[in-house]
Amino acid sequence: MNVTFHGRKQHFRTVTFDAKKNTVLLIEQRLLPHEFKVVATRDFRETANAIRDMIVRGAGAIGATAAYGLAQGARAFRGDHLKNFSSHVETVYRTLKAARPTAVDPVNAMNDVLATMRRGNTVEEKQSLALAAAEEFANEDVRHCEEIGRHGAKLIRNGMKVLTHCNAGWLAFVDVGTATAPMYAAQAQRKKFHVFCDETRPRCQGGTLTAWELAQQGIPHQIIADNAAGHLMQRGEIDMVIVGSDRTLGRTGEVANKIGTYTKAVLAARHQVPFYVAIPLSTIDWNMKRGRDIPIEERSAAEVCGAWGIIQNPQSAIRGPQSGRRAYVRTANPTSGARNPGFDVTPPELITGIITPAGIFKPKDLWKRRRQLGYHG
Amino acid sequence: MNVTFHGRKQHFRTVTFDAKKNTVLLIEQRLLPHEFKVVATRDFRETANAIRDMIVRGAGAIGATAAYGLAQGARAFRGDHLKNFSSHVETVYRTLKAARPTAVDPVNAMNDVLATMRRGNTVEEKQSLALAAAEEFANEDVRHCEEIGRHGAKLIRNGMKVLTHCNAGWLAFVDVGTATAPMYAAQAQRKKFHVFCDETRPRCQGGTLTAWELAQQGIPHQIIADNAAGHLMQRGEIDMVIVGSDRTLGRTGEVANKIGTYTKAVLAARHQVPFYVAIPLSTIDWNMKRGRDIPIEERSAAEVCGAWGIIQNPQSAIRGPQSGRRAYVRTANPTSGARNPGFDVTPPELITGIITPAGIFKPKDLWKRRRQLGYHG
Repeated sequence: MNVTFHGRKQHFRTVTFDAKKNTVLLIEQRLLPHEFKVVATRDFRETANAIRDMIVRGAGAIGATAAYGLAQGARAFRGDHLKNFSSHVETVYRTLKAARPTAVDPVNAMNDVLATMRRGNTVEEKQSLALAAAEEFANEDVRHCEEIGRHGAKLIRNGMKVLTHCNAGWLAFVDVGTATAPMYAAQAQRKKFHVFCDETRPRCQGGTLTAWELAQQGIPHQIIADNAAGHLMQRGEIDMVIVGSDRTLGRTGEVANKIGTYTKAVLAARHQVPFYVAIPLSTIDWNMKRGRDIPIEERSAAEVCGAWGIIQNPQSAIRGPQSGRRAYVRTANPTSGARNPGFDVTPPELITGIITPAGIFKPKDLWKRRRQLGYHG
Repeated sequence: MNVTFHGRKQHFRTVTFDAKKNTVLLIEQRLLPHEFKVVATRDFRETANAIRDMIVRGAGAIGATAAYGLAQGARAFRGDHLKNFSSHVETVYRTLKAARPTAVDPVNAMNDVLATMRRGNTVEEKQSLALAAAEEFANEDVRHCEEIGRHGAKLIRNGMKVLTHCNAGWLAFVDVGTATAPMYAAQAQRKKFHVFCDETRPRCQGGTLTAWELAQQGIPHQIIADNAAGHLMQRGEIDMVIVGSDRTLGRTGEVANKIGTYTKAVLAARHQVPFYVAIPLSTIDWNMKRGRDIPIEERSAAEVCGAWGIIQNPQSAIRGPQSGRRAYVRTANPTSGARNPGFDVTPPELITGIITPAGIFKPKDLWKRRRQLGYHG
């Protein structure tokens, strides 16, 4: 999508590849929204570190990064000895996989690349096929998001106020995003609408990443505390909710997503506000039989007990340290602990529709439409 | 309540008066939970500033502070000229009232003090009555909170997990608090229970003030993001909710309280978790006919877009500024704005009971029981 950088609006993808220098180019997401910087990883180990250290995050984005990292590693091999090449590629694969051991996207993406490489007969051919496969993986990620946008944009009417939670935007994918895709498509159709971004404590991805994206794209928006949406719905100020998903159960229509998503779905149902979930097909889990079995990661107390930001001196400062530096502040009582579940599960009866690249479906219909949705069971 | 201070557990009230020095003693709440400090205001203007600058906040606490401030001002008068005294007291009253113009408690408290002063015939008598009336106002605030505790403690059973939102604790009153009163009373009865404190963005009063209070009292508790309670209720990990109220409508049973309270009530109703509101009688509004007419203050965007805390260096620091200083950090995208409604209104059908000093009532029964609840209409 577009980023205004050094005063000029430029198009960026979250992840790209420089074939000449054999580097992966990544938007350094840990510095956003306060600083925009693209970093180049010079070898597959640096690429793996970038995944591990969260320079890049989000399902589609880390999938593409791993695919490019595998191609990068393969292309760095010197010589024509096929067996040595294979063992080198195996090392690259394992290194990249270990960078985010619980994520499924890097593994799926690298398996795609490996399958394509098998068609080559020489090291050189395999190297060339690896890059082509990684590029195809990234392009397909973008096409799928664009399809989500095409279907979802029909739901956004002029004058609507749309709520989103966390970041399922283009920073989480190669481009366009999922929950944001209908917004960007509706904007391209010159529709006028307003977006409320839930701050999304504890990590604040809504107030930082989603708000930054929308600001860069010129979409009118406001950040709200996670506490505020109930009141706004009561006053008729929210017309629709669109969120992403980390895992959607194909058999039940249950949706696991960032903590707080379930709460917004409950509020939306009470106020008859349509609640949509936008997902790529790769996040559908066709095996799991019930949402209660989805493991809910318990994250660090430090996230709940503090926040990262840029030190400022607002007028209300009691004492004002120097401004402009990035810091973590402990907000909470120093002698208290925290519970910090990272995700929650929303049941299908609270979801109006699931927006996929293949169309919009009732959550209960996913299983019925499984062939259309890429199930090969 | 108890505070461990310089290594010793001591009893403190939020607001007290030193008759010898004619000073009001206030816990400096803006420094909590990171620093505990009692400040003394030396004259009524300093006391008014303390109310205005939020050194003291919370309905009961600012009421008692204004009452003491009026006595302080009256007692500072030198001479026995009654007319000059009256005009001096009028200045004191207006100065203290102007410190928090929308609050009703300081006005009610000072009217109490003025009424008692009328019984004196000399300046000296009036000065003495002023202090006695202020002390009585503070003591009555404490007795009412203790009564709330006595009624509410019956609801807390061994092993329960109780959720609270924002701070309706002893820091908001002279002592004991309202939402916390049943917890402190249950603790005195040696019941074992666990409290979840909603962080309560944007001002984080739950993670700072309530968590600090509970830690000082030795009540087991954990802070949670405002997003987490829905998930915990889904998993059966919350047995009861108790919150305070800024204004409760006696005619309808609607409850205005800190933003996010309504959301918790909606979640509690869905999960059949009892939802209680603890209030002193002074917060019942017997005149207003519908909750929609309660003005909802729109607060500053800076609250939503950042947070106050102590700079720390957690392991995950990208760059680490020096630790230990208090600072405001901007978390949100710098080019985004915010909506920040400060309160919301919870309808009576979502409230299991209203815990008052006079007993526990269904919200719809407040009007029927209005004589018992102090209505003089």
